Amino acid sequence: MESGFFLMSLYMKIAICQLNPQIGNFDYNFQKINSFVEKAKNNNADIAIFPEMSVSGYPPFDLLFYNDYIQKSNDTLNKISQLAKDITIIVGSPYSNEPETNNSIFNSAVVFQNQKCVSQIHKTVFAQNDVFDDYRYFSGNNELPCVNIDDKKLAIIVGGDFWQIKNDYANPFEVYSKQKPDIFINISASLFGVGQFENKLKALNHYAEKYNAPIININMAGAQTELIFDGRSMIALPDGNNKILNAFEEDFFVYDTNNPPDITKQSQKTDIALIHDALIFGIKEYFAKLGIKKAALGLSGGLDSAVVAYLASEAIGSDNVDALLMPSKFSSQHSIDDAVGLAKNLKINYEIISIEKSFDTFSETLKPYFKNLPFNVAEENIQARIRGLLLMAWSNKFGNLVLNTSNKSEAAVGYGTLYGDMCGGLSVIGDLYKTQVYQLANFINRNKEIIPKNTITKVPSAELRPNQKDSDSLPDYNILDEVLRLYIEEMQSPADIISRGFDKDIVARVCKMVNANEYKRYQAPPVLRVSSKAFGLGRKMPLISKLNI
Amino acid sequence: MESGFFLMSLYMKIAICQLNPQIGNFDYNFQKINSFVEKAKNNNADIAIFPEMSVSGYPPFDLLFYNDYIQKSNDTLNKISQLAKDITIIVGSPYSNEPETNNSIFNSAVVFQNQKCVSQIHKTVFAQNDVFDDYRYFSGNNELPCVNIDDKKLAIIVGGDFWQIKNDYANPFEVYSKQKPDIFINISASLFGVGQFENKLKALNHYAEKYNAPIININMAGAQTELIFDGRSMIALPDGNNKILNAFEEDFFVYDTNNPPDITKQSQKTDIALIHDALIFGIKEYFAKLGIKKAALGLSGGLDSAVVAYLASEAIGSDNVDALLMPSKFSSQHSIDDAVGLAKNLKINYEIISIEKSFDTFSETLKPYFKNLPFNVAEENIQARIRGLLLMAWSNKFGNLVLNTSNKSEAAVGYGTLYGDMCGGLSVIGDLYKTQVYQLANFINRNKEIIPKNTITKVPSAELRPNQKDSDSLPDYNILDEVLRLYIEEMQSPADIISRGFDKDIVARVCKMVNANEYKRYQAPPVLRVSSKAFGLGRKMPLISKLNI
Repeated sequence: MESGFFLMSLYMKIAICQLNPQIGNFDYNFQKINSFVEKAKNNNADIAIFPEMSVSGYPPFDLLFYNDYIQKSNDTLNKISQLAKDITIIVGSPYSNEPETNNSIFNSAVVFQNQKCVSQIHKTVFAQNDVFDDYRYFSGNNELPCVNIDDKKLAIIVGGDFWQIKNDYANPFEVYSKQKPDIFINISASLFGVGQFENKLKALNHYAEKYNAPIININMAGAQTELIFDGRSMIALPDGNNKILNAFEEDFFVYDTNNPPDITKQSQKTDIALIHDALIFGIKEYFAKLGIKKAALGLSGGLDSAVVAYLASEAIGSDNVDALLMPSKFSSQHSIDDAVGLAKNLKINYEIISIEKSFDTFSETLKPYFKNLPFNVAEENIQARIRGLLLMAWSNKFGNLVLNTSNKSEAAVGYGTLYGDMCGGLSVIGDLYKTQVYQLANFINRNKEIIPKNTITKVPSAELRPNQKDSDSLPDYNILDEVLRLYIEEMQSPADIISRGFDKDIVARVCKMVNANEYKRYQAPPVLRVSSKAFGLGRKMPLISKLNI
Repeated sequence: MESGFFLMSLYMKIAICQLNPQIGNFDYNFQKINSFVEKAKNNNADIAIFPEMSVSGYPPFDLLFYNDYIQKSNDTLNKISQLAKDITIIVGSPYSNEPETNNSIFNSAVVFQNQKCVSQIHKTVFAQNDVFDDYRYFSGNNELPCVNIDDKKLAIIVGGDFWQIKNDYANPFEVYSKQKPDIFINISASLFGVGQFENKLKALNHYAEKYNAPIININMAGAQTELIFDGRSMIALPDGNNKILNAFEEDFFVYDTNNPPDITKQSQKTDIALIHDALIFGIKEYFAKLGIKKAALGLSGGLDSAVVAYLASEAIGSDNVDALLMPSKFSSQHSIDDAVGLAKNLKINYEIISIEKSFDTFSETLKPYFKNLPFNVAEENIQARIRGLLLMAWSNKFGNLVLNTSNKSEAAVGYGTLYGDMCGGLSVIGDLYKTQVYQLANFINRNKEIIPKNTITKVPSAELRPNQKDSDSLPDYNILDEVLRLYIEEMQSPADIISRGFDKDIVARVCKMVNANEYKRYQAPPVLRVSSKAFGLGRKMPLISKLNI
């Protein structure tokens, strides 16, 4: 299907440069921008446009408080101005008129023409309730004048948070509409998160139709530790048609306003397929940006570590994944068999290292003090921590990065051992509830049995004491996960959740567990974010609150 | 010396209620407010004034996104209104006109008279560059009308950040001055931090003189995990005289404008004495608010753990401190002797638990994989992690909270083992550079030798390999600490630091180490904050930045 939308008055070729910049690597970012500009010129584009904060990478956080960071941004902008010959360039960057004092830094779209900076449009709507805190760094702005390029009026909007505008902000689309722009340019650094792309698409289609002008969104691609910028830059035409660029990689597309893009509907991926792609991309990016090749993880025979092992082998290659099977006397034979089966299916390296001797040594060491006190969480945690210690020793000796295998349900209620199974450099599935880990496992097995069936069907257990089952300590995962989702993602109060029909005692118990375990999550590794609210950066809670639930 | 300042027109008795509220404990906070109001009435006060956010505790962070939190604040405000009989009450609280939607929440001073809410003044100047992020939660405000109480014009200002006003904000003192108020009331929740009190005092004295009106500051007391609110509410009179309430505890004072307070100058404490008091208070508060009695820590014979052991025993009592001495074959006899000497001086419990067997077992377990690879950081870290494991096992068995003993210099450059010596529930001296730890040790020993002299004078060593010394890996602490202070607290660029005369290679090496170890600090325990910039909450950095230094 071709778009019926056709604007005679607007003839332009616009190069969408979906960049993956590196934080603080101004030289690398400049080279990348340079090569995209070359490509745009070779395609006879009139304008080349780059995402929000392309010059410095995003988010640089408190690096923005350092005046050399702003000075380097300014220097790079000066270099980019030289590229603007026979082409207009619009690029996102921190911007200051007085870099030496570091006062009044803006999050800006800087426009270059004829090797000169001709305009800066500053961000107006700051994201407020999750991982970003632009208000910490940037000065506010209320002025949104259209920029004239080749007799066209461009309405330039920085940032992708206009669909959740709070009362403090004016809607930039509305502000601009009074100036009757020919086209909206929206540069952003928006994150992947289930459902968030759809919100953005809906908002852009709404405004394109309402103001009868195309909207070009240029979004960042790439991941910065836990934050996954999904690309998927888009063109929203007033007739409701869209062109969407690739997810989870750099991409480039020239939009010729006289030759509307081929917008044959691509088959939309399911949420779980997108999560699958996002997590693999997140792992790949973390290792690439750190310059580390190999991963290590503990393989228990259970679901979580099996899924992480699969994702890691997809991201960095089976050869680069070392799995340690670390059975204790409480480990069942099927656990070892399932773990070995998985390792063989994935063709990853594995070693079986018993922790029994280490555990016995610690028991002996502590016997004079623990005396005949009953086996309890102390002994359970010793096992988990021995495993953590062995993984970290492996990491220190061979240079692997340890992947954490905790899921979001466990992390939420504190069902894990600090410095034990909670160790690692990156939490891969820490933003997936257990029920989502099941969905992902079934997705992974959609064509053939990669994760052993028994791993998926058996009753979940930490195997830290005889006959232990998750259900000894936790409500059924179907209930637990929905209560957690309402409490964490939707920030509903316990009373609200109960009013939806959930059992009062379960809700109270679950919410209390969430609050009581902030201290554990405080020391957890960064979590690849795939929901609208992940633990870590975007959720800031007091460690001690005396909430009456 | 008595104050010469005497305002005939202003006759009022103002009760300063320096409260220590609990986050989320609305009932407790109400009871506390009630008892302070009673006391104020018994003292014939006209007004009782409470710190910023007294109703909810501060900072509740993302709890403010939950509508029941705002609803509970509103309910508590309603209860407080009933207390306002024959007295005016001014209390800090989150405030919303529409709690059900959770839109437009303000950080407010709510004024009650005749059992009714008569006014709300909202915070205007939001702190922007450290631990607080009011802009994340609260709507902005530009209106500052004086409030009339008993024919006096009160200028009420919420928040204590007016001495670092950025261009986005108008100075509330200036805004109010046009209305010629009789008195300024400033309710705050300001943190302890070396030098910060002096900034506040200076600013208040400046404005009191400039606008010829007394300023009453009512500051929160108490600690919330790492954040230490130091109290020290103050009266600043136009003639330059001050009355300062107690530090690090709740306090109460009635300011009678016709009987200026006895402001006999108290002997000012030195910075190190205040740090000493702040850290003890921070530990005490954390244990009290958690409801935990006992601490455990590893005692190495070195300086850091000795200082922490002393602070803990002062905070929660010697009986409640369990010290584990965990020597390896690399531990020197003097380390054990010094640790035992300290434990005896402090009268804390101690046990000597050798880690040699555990280390040998791990070596044996890993031998098939490590083969004959040379002893390196893997083996060093195994020792540190065995110690971490033993402390945590002790904690799990006996209910102790593990105190972390890392200092800020180590944490800055990553000279520590994640899950090893970096473990614990609270970092006590993690905001003190090594040179400050020496100062503190000498302060502790000012009257008698509590910390064994040898612990202070010997060459610092981690004792994880034969003849190891800190100076093998790190520059001299006098240089290291000053470079770190300039880079971290003052946020100077490496070039700026070099221009002060520091060696170029050392500065580059130190700054690189700081940046490369963000990942370790990400998983470190919360750090009692005593400087203007501590690791943790108030310093947000990307884990991977490709800065060219």
